[in-house]
Amino acid sequence: MDRQALISLIRERQSFLCVGLDTDPAKMPAHLQEQTDGVFQFNRAIIDATIDSCVAYKPNLAFYEALGIEGLRQLKMTMDYIHSLGKPVFTIADAKRGDIGNTSERYARAFLDPKGDFNFDAITVAPYMGADSVQPFTVYPGKWVILLALTSNKGAFDFQLTTDAQGTPLYQRVLDTSKQWGNEDNMMYVVGATKAEMLTDVRRHVPQSFLLVPGVGAQGGSLDEVCRYGLTDECGLLVNSSRGIIYASNGDDFAEAASVEARKLQQQMASWIK
Amino acid sequence: MDRQALISLIRERQSFLCVGLDTDPAKMPAHLQEQTDGVFQFNRAIIDATIDSCVAYKPNLAFYEALGIEGLRQLKMTMDYIHSLGKPVFTIADAKRGDIGNTSERYARAFLDPKGDFNFDAITVAPYMGADSVQPFTVYPGKWVILLALTSNKGAFDFQLTTDAQGTPLYQRVLDTSKQWGNEDNMMYVVGATKAEMLTDVRRHVPQSFLLVPGVGAQGGSLDEVCRYGLTDECGLLVNSSRGIIYASNGDDFAEAASVEARKLQQQMASWIK
Repeated sequence: MDRQALISLIRERQSFLCVGLDTDPAKMPAHLQEQTDGVFQFNRAIIDATIDSCVAYKPNLAFYEALGIEGLRQLKMTMDYIHSLGKPVFTIADAKRGDIGNTSERYARAFLDPKGDFNFDAITVAPYMGADSVQPFTVYPGKWVILLALTSNKGAFDFQLTTDAQGTPLYQRVLDTSKQWGNEDNMMYVVGATKAEMLTDVRRHVPQSFLLVPGVGAQGGSLDEVCRYGLTDECGLLVNSSRGIIYASNGDDFAEAASVEARKLQQQMASWIK
Repeated sequence: MDRQALISLIRERQSFLCVGLDTDPAKMPAHLQEQTDGVFQFNRAIIDATIDSCVAYKPNLAFYEALGIEGLRQLKMTMDYIHSLGKPVFTIADAKRGDIGNTSERYARAFLDPKGDFNFDAITVAPYMGADSVQPFTVYPGKWVILLALTSNKGAFDFQLTTDAQGTPLYQRVLDTSKQWGNEDNMMYVVGATKAEMLTDVRRHVPQSFLLVPGVGAQGGSLDEVCRYGLTDECGLLVNSSRGIIYASNGDDFAEAASVEARKLQQQMASWIK
């Protein structure tokens, strides 16, 4: 999905919500835990309940890999289901990959190739290994690399905020340097919501780029703060909520509860979009 | 495999060679390309041909993921085969993972859990997200996290060598900070062979830690240089070669050719071990 299609989708749905599919079998309703494809069934119900309120889904690869090959099979079923719906929605492999050039090429193929098992629109990538670890993700037309800049966890303080001799924090250096590797049509950035006021600094470096903002809800970030500091006139935001939506209830009404929570966020977002 | 067992294995085999299983179907002999489990058959032949010359195998996850779920099934067959041999050998998931704490926990389970599909001894992890992204990999007894410090690619210069206000490059800050997260018994570091003289600086920060050194051979690093600057009295090195061994021939004699190349490196290593 290219930039214009994404912006149109956001305007149409009046939403820039991304639903994080961090599906944990132990948190699913009991009757799904007993099914061999319970993870897929859970995801399908969440998707059906939320797709009119959101513009993106973001499966977190770790949750599927932790279930072994069987987990990846259920991720593939989930992606096949999304692609079968005939409703446009942006898909993000939250995979945090990145390696030397010939290896990143293969990760790009694994997640972005239209002929591959998953055919995501985008993948999250860690910047530590630099240019050749990131560029292979920018070559698929209409597909995106989402580079980690400033993450929402405590550990973000260990290196991302380290300042160089000129006083520039590492995450800002990542923003600036990465502009040589991609552009606003194929590169987004992860910026954590728990540091919303820092979005002002981020916007100084990447004024028009889309930002994927995790950490709203369970991780403590505020949607209004994120919008105040991060919104552009083309929106420029995908705000993720995972646990707050998919585990809104752990009973048989989990899908209805997810629908209600997604709708609440969508309405709050609509008031910011105008 | 714990530190003492690894050191004993190195002494016994007179080798600290790690064979990188970056298996690319297009580079396998034609008769294997036609087999449904050709990647596994290739790996099995390479393992049989090299196990007496090496102490570790390092499948590069991207090469398997690029083949979809089928590729991971062949990786599992490869790991099952290694575990069935009854010969001790260290196994490394070259996966470059790392995410917020609750997510890294799941990546650790995916690769290190003895009850999981793969049961590796170690996994490579990117440090960008800091403490909570790395610590979950240190909790499995006898298992290891191998943290990226200074990689062998061009992109290493983009951020890893950025110096802070005190003149300390980022990779040295990673070495120092990470000592709060693990120790010489559960943490190793990736240090690229193409920067062998920098091993002197690395050893100042982590004098006794094991280093995983990629980049010997195809990427241009020299084994003797690595030993000169990196070897400790307990060895402290795992030196990886991938393409130079597994693609030593692309004909039907690929396994014999791999055996010869692995043996050459082993003999060069034996002269350094004493």
